[in-house]
Amino acid sequence: MNSFGRIFRVSLFGESHGRGIGVLIDGCPAGLSLAEEDLVRDLDRRRSGAPGTTPRREPDTPQIRSGVFQGRTTGAPILLLIDNRDVDSKDYDAKRWTPRPGHADLVAWKKYGGFHDHRGSGHFSGRLTAGLVMAGAVARKLIRPATVTAALEEAGGFPQIEEAVQDAVDKKDSIGGMVRCRVSGLPAGLGEPFFDSAESLISHAVFAIPAIKGIEFGSGFRLARMRGSEANDVILDAEGTTATNHAGGIHGGITNGNDLEFRVAVKPTSSIPRTQRTVDLRTGETAMLQVEGRHDACIALRMPVVVEAAAALVLADLMRIAGRIPPVLAE
Amino acid sequence: MNSFGRIFRVSLFGESHGRGIGVLIDGCPAGLSLAEEDLVRDLDRRRSGAPGTTPRREPDTPQIRSGVFQGRTTGAPILLLIDNRDVDSKDYDAKRWTPRPGHADLVAWKKYGGFHDHRGSGHFSGRLTAGLVMAGAVARKLIRPATVTAALEEAGGFPQIEEAVQDAVDKKDSIGGMVRCRVSGLPAGLGEPFFDSAESLISHAVFAIPAIKGIEFGSGFRLARMRGSEANDVILDAEGTTATNHAGGIHGGITNGNDLEFRVAVKPTSSIPRTQRTVDLRTGETAMLQVEGRHDACIALRMPVVVEAAAALVLADLMRIAGRIPPVLAE
Amino acid sequence: MNSFGRIFRVSLFGESHGRGIGVLIDGCPAGLSLAEEDLVRDLDRRRSGAPGTTPRREPDTPQIRSGVFQGRTTGAPILLLIDNRDVDSKDYDAKRWTPRPGHADLVAWKKYGGFHDHRGSGHFSGRLTAGLVMAGAVARKLIRPATVTAALEEAGGFPQIEEAVQDAVDKKDSIGGMVRCRVSGLPAGLGEPFFDSAESLISHAVFAIPAIKGIEFGSGFRLARMRGSEANDVILDAEGTTATNHAGGIHGGITNGNDLEFRVAVKPTSSIPRTQRTVDLRTGETAMLQVEGRHDACIALRMPVVVEAAAALVLADLMRIAGRIPPVLAE
Amino acid sequence: MNSFGRIFRVSLFGESHGRGIGVLIDGCPAGLSLAEEDLVRDLDRRRSGAPGTTPRREPDTPQIRSGVFQGRTTGAPILLLIDNRDVDSKDYDAKRWTPRPGHADLVAWKKYGGFHDHRGSGHFSGRLTAGLVMAGAVARKLIRPATVTAALEEAGGFPQIEEAVQDAVDKKDSIGGMVRCRVSGLPAGLGEPFFDSAESLISHAVFAIPAIKGIEFGSGFRLARMRGSEANDVILDAEGTTATNHAGGIHGGITNGNDLEFRVAVKPTSSIPRTQRTVDLRTGETAMLQVEGRHDACIALRMPVVVEAAAALVLADLMRIAGRIPPVLAE
Repeated sequence: MNSFGRIFRVSLFGESHGRGIGVLIDGCPAGLSLAEEDLVRDLDRRRSGAPGTTPRREPDTPQIRSGVFQGRTTGAPILLLIDNRDVDSKDYDAKRWTPRPGHADLVAWKKYGGFHDHRGSGHFSGRLTAGLVMAGAVARKLIRPATVTAALEEAGGFPQIEEAVQDAVDKKDSIGGMVRCRVSGLPAGLGEPFFDSAESLISHAVFAIPAIKGIEFGSGFRLARMRGSEANDVILDAEGTTATNHAGGIHGGITNGNDLEFRVAVKPTSSIPRTQRTVDLRTGETAMLQVEGRHDACIALRMPVVVEAAAALVLADLMRIAGRIPPVLAE
Repeated sequence: MNSFGRIFRVSLFGESHGRGIGVLIDGCPAGLSLAEEDLVRDLDRRRSGAPGTTPRREPDTPQIRSGVFQGRTTGAPILLLIDNRDVDSKDYDAKRWTPRPGHADLVAWKKYGGFHDHRGSGHFSGRLTAGLVMAGAVARKLIRPATVTAALEEAGGFPQIEEAVQDAVDKKDSIGGMVRCRVSGLPAGLGEPFFDSAESLISHAVFAIPAIKGIEFGSGFRLARMRGSEANDVILDAEGTTATNHAGGIHGGITNGNDLEFRVAVKPTSSIPRTQRTVDLRTGETAMLQVEGRHDACIALRMPVVVEAAAALVLADLMRIAGRIPPVLAE
Repeated sequence: MNSFGRIFRVSLFGESHGRGIGVLIDGCPAGLSLAEEDLVRDLDRRRSGAPGTTPRREPDTPQIRSGVFQGRTTGAPILLLIDNRDVDSKDYDAKRWTPRPGHADLVAWKKYGGFHDHRGSGHFSGRLTAGLVMAGAVARKLIRPATVTAALEEAGGFPQIEEAVQDAVDKKDSIGGMVRCRVSGLPAGLGEPFFDSAESLISHAVFAIPAIKGIEFGSGFRLARMRGSEANDVILDAEGTTATNHAGGIHGGITNGNDLEFRVAVKPTSSIPRTQRTVDLRTGETAMLQVEGRHDACIALRMPVVVEAAAALVLADLMRIAGRIPPVLAE
Repeated sequence: MNSFGRIFRVSLFGESHGRGIGVLIDGCPAGLSLAEEDLVRDLDRRRSGAPGTTPRREPDTPQIRSGVFQGRTTGAPILLLIDNRDVDSKDYDAKRWTPRPGHADLVAWKKYGGFHDHRGSGHFSGRLTAGLVMAGAVARKLIRPATVTAALEEAGGFPQIEEAVQDAVDKKDSIGGMVRCRVSGLPAGLGEPFFDSAESLISHAVFAIPAIKGIEFGSGFRLARMRGSEANDVILDAEGTTATNHAGGIHGGITNGNDLEFRVAVKPTSSIPRTQRTVDLRTGETAMLQVEGRHDACIALRMPVVVEAAAALVLADLMRIAGRIPPVLAE
């Protein structure tokens, strides 16, 4: 459902074309310094503006509505809100009955009986990830000195990312991409067998992000083709430092103290400036659809900070469960 | 932790070399016919015996200890137990201080302060998946007429699986593999935004299985290299049938009525019959370790039914949440 | 923590003297008509104004910020906000170090290391119950045709409620009260053994309300003094209608189709317009404290609608779990 | 459902006349010494044998089936089993269609469509509390040096308990009772606003026990009749010691460091050796029922240790959440 985490627990809400979006954070320790500026850096990384991103320009000004007093968290729930400003829904009503290929339009119809907010994907919109990013900014502070860093390592299959994006724009198409994420400075011992392995929780959070279709940890899919003598990471010392990191910093579902590494596959934006075939739900007949609206040619460009947020949430929660983040921070 | 699911909820327990293993199932509807024989077919698929699997021979005789009366589930929790029979722990004590590369040995030390049951990986053992398989056998009955089918599609990178396994055995090594899973006959509408997307929950359950290091849905990682015009599945009718299935049957995190498809990467068995370098935890010095015990050269051989079980659990729970499985079954 | 419920799930947030308070509701079916006016009737019953209630006058204007589209719920999370208007915090800073007897002041210090928002009890304030009441107004619509009705049946031990309250005001004191709640029209079968009995869940929610110190179902404490021959409710028909209702409509933790009845004890408001002894946390020495601020002489006067809300939340969730409220409402 | 707790989490299973009963404990720290003898003392206090308790004589021999290695907990789930030995079900089949007044028989029919195990109340039986008691014995060790002590303070309304019980036996009737529970040595700060107040969680667990119909904390229902000037506990020092303890050791839902005190009302055993009126579910007509079987005349006699267990479970979990019990115990 819309909440995630056992102790450090986040709940997302909002819609792309509604009044706004946001996140409610429960289980954040008291005493953490937190101001709206702390959220801005990560929100800015997620914002559009670069070539290949949507012309919708949202200032994404965060408001802290509860849970912070005199500049510090109080231990009470933290409500973080962003109002929607640059909303233009005029195109959506006409297209309500012709579900866009690749989008949640048709499944939303089936699941919610037509009562869903269809404008700009409503609650299914990638805009919701701004809430995830805000929660991630808080989580990031909690897990220090560990750091989470993600980057887009290829777009449309090419490492020359700007060129690949421009080519997609020129061809009125979209492209996907590959994001690599690394967490350094983590303690060993995070992850809770049997079901809450570090991989289980990270993949759970990451697959909540729209457009993600694959994840691998360490050498991932390449491990399926390796021999054990090659895949086993030689243990060099009692700290658990390994000579290689095929395991991506996780053994038996538990962090082993090496860098935690994973890669995710981002599919191409489903909205493309072309006429596509679909069906008219009123008649059941084939219809041709020109998706209007304002879209990213390569949503993967804006994804690294979202992936970082997902990872940070999980790790903050695992550190709370393991007693590694106290309920009151004495900064 | 050791439970998974919101309404149809399973809890795993046990150790490889302890008294046994099993699973406790809560939230199973009343009225489902269930007998020990119903669990045997799936357990047999998971058992060793084929070339390349461990010489440990466990009969894996399941006992239903609660929750079934006169051949049907009662609505009360179902305890399913398997006693361990073919246990040989003699080799483990001597090796307790020299963690096996690729295993959870060292992280367990760090997490549990040395109090864990180290014999045969204890609670981290792949043997725990027998409990998962039993729960999966129950879940499979609940989600009918939907069917879950997985198969090993390559081992060590080769589709000639028997040859690849024999080669690994001959070379005193191990190999990984790739398992493909397909669910047919599912209704559209399963999955709960934002965090409990179908991909999120399936990956959560699947990464709980030891040795899984990657998952992709539909065309997965290949989508990262596609264009939107290629990746979008054309909607053919109001039922949501699509011309292609790059999305793997999931749009916006919700099942769309097409086959749900995913692939998982299984790493090579970490235990190999070779001398490997590790560290002695008592001295901190390098040590050479000969892993004894009885092991699978290709654990992926036994994985398809485990992956099916993980998927079935998730889908049974999602169907309960969506009100598609009633609390009492009128068979 | 700050969330409650398994499928129909509410999360409270906010502070008495912060920007506002509210509730986030997850798991509400799509298709329910919902407007801000729907929340006003219950909020009005909770508001102050009557003799013996606080002079703080909050308009309590609710805003629906997400989850409703074209007058109906969408299935997405519903954020309900109320801004604080009539805040006067000037008295609290001076008194920060002298915890008020009967309040959470001192435990909040200990739990949150002094980082809590102490103004007007902060997140511990009875003001938070406005969020509960809003969620209750939604829940009430879901459980129809069942109805939840509570009333104050005595104040300070007397059934002449107005007189008792006036007497307390005159004596610069406060009084407690007894609230009786009845739910009619419920189906039999709600409640989930072993831990989620109807009594367990209702008491869980009810004891979250500040100032509640006791609860009894049906004949409650009087049952401890009865004989079985007297206490057993004779079953009159196959519907489960009983001649008496000592059980309060719950057998074995499951609703039995009769009226569900319980009573709760509300303690006197801890804030009284008198000088009271406390301790100065800076010096550890005895201090005399005159609690200023604006307070209810009998908080129990405003309690019935809050208790109704707590009961309605629980029942809506139990009905969702039992499949008695579908995920989409066809009104 | 059948699990309770956030981190220290217990799951009950079993039936009165099935193969046995038990509990699965997750989230117990590693390193706690635990042997079957540790469970016996509490189980013995719960066993029958005294005048007024059932002639069914169960040895209640506990088996630790997982989660303990070399005498200490490992951090893995702990399965505790008790086999049923003294089962006599012959009387139940004949009475299946005539629900016993005061029991869960009829609601179980309605909820589970007749598929429940009706013998001796099946999963609704008070016998399940043996599992609770075993989990309580573990929890009790975790919360040390805090101690939980409960006692029966009256039976049938009288403090002369033996006489009251004998009188009920003589009159072929049953009686209820009142149990008082006190927890000493608790730290301040346990309880998680808004919903997981100490009272909320304790009442949740306590109302899961069959036959409990009321609970009050501190002066409880008497507070509803007090004035604030009387009810407020004067704070004597910066530790939070109070002159009186009307609050029962809980302010604002959080433990305040004083003794935590509550009382619960236990209804009379529903099974009485008399002919009672009920209904025949096959015909819908009135039927007369002679409840046979073996029953307690005063189930409250066996209740104190069960109430202690419920309280201990809650407190162990709250202490884990608050980081006051580490994941590894260094005894």
